[in-house]
Amino acid sequence: MKKTTLKEIAKTLNISISTVSKALKDYPDVSKNTKQRVIELAEAVNYSPNAFAQSLRSKESKTIGVIIPSMVHYYFSSVITAILKEAEERGYMVIIMQSNEDVALEIKQVDLLINKGVDGILISLSNNTNNFTHLQKIINYDVPLVLFDKITKLINCSKVIINDKKASYDAVSYLIEKGYKRIAYFRGDLNPQNSIDRFLGYKKALEDHNIIFDSSIVYTCSNADFEEGYLNAEKLITEHGQTIDAICTMTDLTAIGVINYLNEKQIKIPEDIAVLGFSNWFMSTVITPTLSSVEQNAQKTGEKSIEVLFQEIECKQKDLPITHQTIIIDTELIVRNST
Amino acid sequence: MKKTTLKEIAKTLNISISTVSKALKDYPDVSKNTKQRVIELAEAVNYSPNAFAQSLRSKESKTIGVIIPSMVHYYFSSVITAILKEAEERGYMVIIMQSNEDVALEIKQVDLLINKGVDGILISLSNNTNNFTHLQKIINYDVPLVLFDKITKLINCSKVIINDKKASYDAVSYLIEKGYKRIAYFRGDLNPQNSIDRFLGYKKALEDHNIIFDSSIVYTCSNADFEEGYLNAEKLITEHGQTIDAICTMTDLTAIGVINYLNEKQIKIPEDIAVLGFSNWFMSTVITPTLSSVEQNAQKTGEKSIEVLFQEIECKQKDLPITHQTIIIDTELIVRNST
Repeated sequence: MKKTTLKEIAKTLNISISTVSKALKDYPDVSKNTKQRVIELAEAVNYSPNAFAQSLRSKESKTIGVIIPSMVHYYFSSVITAILKEAEERGYMVIIMQSNEDVALEIKQVDLLINKGVDGILISLSNNTNNFTHLQKIINYDVPLVLFDKITKLINCSKVIINDKKASYDAVSYLIEKGYKRIAYFRGDLNPQNSIDRFLGYKKALEDHNIIFDSSIVYTCSNADFEEGYLNAEKLITEHGQTIDAICTMTDLTAIGVINYLNEKQIKIPEDIAVLGFSNWFMSTVITPTLSSVEQNAQKTGEKSIEVLFQEIECKQKDLPITHQTIIIDTELIVRNST
Repeated sequence: MKKTTLKEIAKTLNISISTVSKALKDYPDVSKNTKQRVIELAEAVNYSPNAFAQSLRSKESKTIGVIIPSMVHYYFSSVITAILKEAEERGYMVIIMQSNEDVALEIKQVDLLINKGVDGILISLSNNTNNFTHLQKIINYDVPLVLFDKITKLINCSKVIINDKKASYDAVSYLIEKGYKRIAYFRGDLNPQNSIDRFLGYKKALEDHNIIFDSSIVYTCSNADFEEGYLNAEKLITEHGQTIDAICTMTDLTAIGVINYLNEKQIKIPEDIAVLGFSNWFMSTVITPTLSSVEQNAQKTGEKSIEVLFQEIECKQKDLPITHQTIIIDTELIVRNST
């Protein structure tokens, strides 16, 4: 199969098989122009992607690529720390890229990593990623891919996630059982699966406790940041006043924005309004009042993601079949003074 | 010069000049064994490092390496964000490594980056780095090197820093001018230049305001973390009670530990004791009371560091002489409720 591909490409371009092989392996003694022609044709005649990819990438680079939406972010920097540590121990280097929630950048970064010949790629998708051709391209190139945290169910690869719906369901159920009845929800962006699932968990918890869902007290925080928490708390209080007795958010940073607003307005937490976060950032342990939150276990997510990636890299090196896995990381509700 | 080296190595190892050249360029069609022999000998006969390095690294990798002590750290993750953004815009990839304040790991990481053939290296040193052979090795290999934040004055390369002594001097002078007289100081580790300079700034401010320096109210926080802030505040209050009217710290995270302890003991901030941080973490704007701090401008540090690195990479590519620069980033005292 492989030989046929190389031979055909060589024949079509009227160059030697060895030049085609070298071009696909990115040897420096083949001209840029020839490489480009070979790669374009190889992509075009993509009827044997594995053989092509194997040939393209037979050389181990001992480097993996990681794409995350943001680095100044307690959860992601904690995941990256675990990834760097595990990679280090196995003698791998890590190229880190930050998509800034920009899907065009994410696509470009995937191309750069493929061209660089990394041995595997880890991605947490940007909020705006709703087309997955670039992920499929990684798979077509036979590069092991693991998605974590912000994933899509539409791509057949390994995934490391939490059970967002259940974690959110449990947290909201806890609020209801503590006696809170009118619970506003500050959801994340509309696209990401984790944002959707956390919102569904909120709705289901209301439903199972016979509380009627009211879409007018659901606010969207697309960036899930401090400002949105602050501004939406202001909006909520202006629009619904003291009828609200709890605010449940998609992330701690948003919840901290909410707390900041409520503290400023001297609305007592949790006596007047309780606040619940998600992700258990360090910051939540030092603010006043300390914030109840869902521990998402960033370290374990990082460790598992790279462990699965290395399993797939190893299978590929040994020409063994790869079975994709979906790993669910445990979460835990941490109750503090805000509820 | 270059030819002589290659020729001599070839002659000594009894292989062709072209094989030596290919081995030094890490071409895949030279055996690992041969590459190793060539590189070892080339290092041994290091009398023409530039020519050797040029030959070794004539191929641009479009990759730079960054070594930092820690990633889950507001300042460093902010610097990295700026570095990733600038690298992205110039089509460069960034390999990130975390030394965890472990000098052996830092040395290993430098070797990995040199072997990888990165085009340049940015480092913020670990606290325990007090021998700089690995930095000299980078320079011997003719790889552009820029040190930022935690640097050493003993290596001749470009540096991007703040004026730690002045920033600390100004902050402590501000406290004294506000009427605080007995100011404890929570210093960082003994090795890093920034830790030394901030401490010297504290001492000088006392001296210039005729306050006698008292080493018994100086505590060392080697990790500059939350726990050390908390525990040393406890120690300070136990040992010196209410004679202290202000605590000045090496970083915000330590200051937040201090605030946490004082809040727990219901010691009023700033009425009983004022607290001053350094580095202006986001967290400092949301805790109670908000923390006065020194804005260190992480973004500008990241931008300048990579800008200088790219200047040196460009000079090297064009065979122009490189003039090392020391860039001083502006700082600013941000006064909030804790003072």
